[in-house]
Amino acid sequence: MKRAVYPGSFDPVTYGHLDIIKRASTLVDELIVGVLVNPSKSPLFTLEERVDILRKVTADIPNVRVERFSGLLVNFVSEMGARIVVKGLRALSDFDIEFQMALMNRKLAESQETIFLMTSDKYAFLSSSMVKDIYRLGGKADCLVPPYVSERLQAKYANLQNQQQEEE
Amino acid sequence: MKRAVYPGSFDPVTYGHLDIIKRASTLVDELIVGVLVNPSKSPLFTLEERVDILRKVTADIPNVRVERFSGLLVNFVSEMGARIVVKGLRALSDFDIEFQMALMNRKLAESQETIFLMTSDKYAFLSSSMVKDIYRLGGKADCLVPPYVSERLQAKYANLQNQQQEEE
Amino acid sequence: MKRAVYPGSFDPVTYGHLDIIKRASTLVDELIVGVLVNPSKSPLFTLEERVDILRKVTADIPNVRVERFSGLLVNFVSEMGARIVVKGLRALSDFDIEFQMALMNRKLAESQETIFLMTSDKYAFLSSSMVKDIYRLGGKADCLVPPYVSERLQAKYANLQNQQQEEE
Amino acid sequence: MKRAVYPGSFDPVTYGHLDIIKRASTLVDELIVGVLVNPSKSPLFTLEERVDILRKVTADIPNVRVERFSGLLVNFVSEMGARIVVKGLRALSDFDIEFQMALMNRKLAESQETIFLMTSDKYAFLSSSMVKDIYRLGGKADCLVPPYVSERLQAKYANLQNQQQEEE
Amino acid sequence: MKRAVYPGSFDPVTYGHLDIIKRASTLVDELIVGVLVNPSKSPLFTLEERVDILRKVTADIPNVRVERFSGLLVNFVSEMGARIVVKGLRALSDFDIEFQMALMNRKLAESQETIFLMTSDKYAFLSSSMVKDIYRLGGKADCLVPPYVSERLQAKYANLQNQQQEEE
Amino acid sequence: MKRAVYPGSFDPVTYGHLDIIKRASTLVDELIVGVLVNPSKSPLFTLEERVDILRKVTADIPNVRVERFSGLLVNFVSEMGARIVVKGLRALSDFDIEFQMALMNRKLAESQETIFLMTSDKYAFLSSSMVKDIYRLGGKADCLVPPYVSERLQAKYANLQNQQQEEE
Repeated sequence: MKRAVYPGSFDPVTYGHLDIIKRASTLVDELIVGVLVNPSKSPLFTLEERVDILRKVTADIPNVRVERFSGLLVNFVSEMGARIVVKGLRALSDFDIEFQMALMNRKLAESQETIFLMTSDKYAFLSSSMVKDIYRLGGKADCLVPPYVSERLQAKYANLQNQQQEEE
Repeated sequence: MKRAVYPGSFDPVTYGHLDIIKRASTLVDELIVGVLVNPSKSPLFTLEERVDILRKVTADIPNVRVERFSGLLVNFVSEMGARIVVKGLRALSDFDIEFQMALMNRKLAESQETIFLMTSDKYAFLSSSMVKDIYRLGGKADCLVPPYVSERLQAKYANLQNQQQEEE
Repeated sequence: MKRAVYPGSFDPVTYGHLDIIKRASTLVDELIVGVLVNPSKSPLFTLEERVDILRKVTADIPNVRVERFSGLLVNFVSEMGARIVVKGLRALSDFDIEFQMALMNRKLAESQETIFLMTSDKYAFLSSSMVKDIYRLGGKADCLVPPYVSERLQAKYANLQNQQQEEE
Repeated sequence: MKRAVYPGSFDPVTYGHLDIIKRASTLVDELIVGVLVNPSKSPLFTLEERVDILRKVTADIPNVRVERFSGLLVNFVSEMGARIVVKGLRALSDFDIEFQMALMNRKLAESQETIFLMTSDKYAFLSSSMVKDIYRLGGKADCLVPPYVSERLQAKYANLQNQQQEEE
Repeated sequence: MKRAVYPGSFDPVTYGHLDIIKRASTLVDELIVGVLVNPSKSPLFTLEERVDILRKVTADIPNVRVERFSGLLVNFVSEMGARIVVKGLRALSDFDIEFQMALMNRKLAESQETIFLMTSDKYAFLSSSMVKDIYRLGGKADCLVPPYVSERLQAKYANLQNQQQEEE
Repeated sequence: MKRAVYPGSFDPVTYGHLDIIKRASTLVDELIVGVLVNPSKSPLFTLEERVDILRKVTADIPNVRVERFSGLLVNFVSEMGARIVVKGLRALSDFDIEFQMALMNRKLAESQETIFLMTSDKYAFLSSSMVKDIYRLGGKADCLVPPYVSERLQAKYANLQNQQQEEE
């Protein structure tokens, strides 16, 4: 395995994502973290912010590169010169959806292969949207995201609250 | 178990919720039904209506109290002087999501405990959103909600239809 | 089994739907494909387009009729003089939701029966929304939809893109 | 649908099985209940007893016939001149196994079709082995099996206990 | 909640069981750990050994009592003067079977209630049979069972191996 | 990824296993198929037969080696100088058990990693035990196993039947 792509929204990256990034980076020569532009959802962090945060928290893993992508995943994988897609599986994740997407990608690009890695049991329950819920409601979750992400979440929601108050 | 919290949106309360409320009320000294303010979703009934309906249909259970809450569930539980959260499990419910939230809450408040009770098999299929679909489409479901809730649902949708016709 | 109803949004019909239509049509005298008006979602194709596409791709199956419906499914089934509802089950479908709806319908109309047929394993991963994602992102999936549907999807997204560019 | 086969071990038949038999019998001209010889498991009731019990409790449904079978299900279905296999789905059944067997049968006999009916929610939890556990441990479950089956279970376990005591 | 029963085979007790015992013991006045005699399976440890091990490892929890039981669980619960059954739920446990048994018990004893507690995510994967597999194959798993259980497992398998060699 | 182990009973190898072997062999320098001795189950084919059959049907894949193993998987993996375990995931497989074993192995050998590959949707329903059922009952399944395995299965069951008749 020369090069693999780990795709996602990373809005924001959690310790669960980092766990998969670290595990996958030991299996391949180069791991490309692909950040989905995804214009149909409205993410909390902009694409630039999500890429920036990911680069900060993966700076110490030498063979990890962070790239943005739009369009079909299979096209991005082939543009990157990769043929492996990495996905994390949580005990409680929506396995059906992951499996559907992987089978669909196989139809679109027979030569590409999706490999699933298990997230650590410590992060079985963890999702970006749950982390956002906690910070939106004024909580803090240092055991779920790196300190830098925690700061960015607090700043982001403080910002949003200020905007709302000004509008009122 | 002195005091427990049963949280939810209750938009509106169904016989499935009432089944859990009755079961839980026999296990604890006081059961607090916590109605989520939940500003991000647009509920059919306002917070006041949901609290009012719940108080009507639980009036005959002496150790049940209905309260509204916003913010993190773990904070509400501790403000209420409780340490138990009650959740209903249906055979067909999205068990994964319930489990994720309960594990997340454990991270945020180690001393609190979530206990799951099984809903009666008669209500295995029942959800507030299915009940609303039936009434919105002109149906009636007396076996799924108490008579008072059935009336409120019919009045609400008659009201909404009148508003729409006036706007047109 | 004289007459059965196969309900859905069909936005658009896929080879997975067609697989169920063909299987079901051999089991009954007449199969009515019921296209849901569904005003709460915003479909890609209008009701007229969805009905039109379905009629084109089922033209060669003599005992299949395509009809639109709104309101409760159980009312439509009884208006059609049917008492059987056909649903497709995929290995990876959200079985829980299907089961909930079927149990709910049984409460509303005891004399009606839902029968589940298995979709071919070739289409285990297939859903209308995945097909739309592929075409929206400029891909093509001739193995998932009939040629006529593929053309309609390409035309529709070309159209939408032109509209967007004019608006900018 | 002229004729269908409902296969199983029926060791012994429960109200859950009877629920499916009644529902299926209204959908077809003739329903053949196929009792599996199954030499690899050691059933509580002999093949003759299981067939006898089934005939007793289905005596009032005119278009139901009870037959024993060994070998491949697809061969039995074709010998019976049927092409439909009926299976019951419980909310809590092992859906995966049912689906695997149905897909396997489709590979072996493309022209045969498996249709799944939902068991009543009253019997979502019910299985023959649970019923046997209750009677083996001296309990009684009149709400789960017809009176005649209840008697046969009590007689069978009384008999087995006598045999054990004589052996000691 | 005055008194509750936590039933199981405990062959042997693991840190996962102990996690549930500790959580449950804080919710009730007295927790009775009910060790199933279970003559139909062949356990690794005898009933006496399993009770003995459980008493050793729960000696420091004052309101926990270990008792053996045979027959129907609902009868044991009522003999103990309890009306609550405690069960542990793991993210990866066979939830369906637990739910079936709990619904069955509700049919047999309407006044009894099963409450489910979540096992710590650290033990999501843990089962007695997996622990036995590891020790049988010569491994050691100090993070999964208390030191005393680890010793007993090693002694038991050393013993079994000696017996086998003598027989040969 | 230099070297990986694909463990199993392979009693016998099916096209589903071969699908995973082919996919995995393109991802690593060397793939070791580890055949489990497994003294606790009674396999249809002896260890020697299972190894022999696997070597025949993988003879044309240069970087695949077939080896037997007993004891803990993590020990075998480390003896082979590998640190990757490959497992196949079927849409309908018992995902929970696979996940439990992989998490357990991670506890026993932190440096080893399990990667899951999806089996082709064509084999979503396929298991060795289903194949054996078909041949035991006199059926034939050329689309599920290679011709050589089909012959071995027919010979094996013909043999077993002769033995049984001689004993009678």
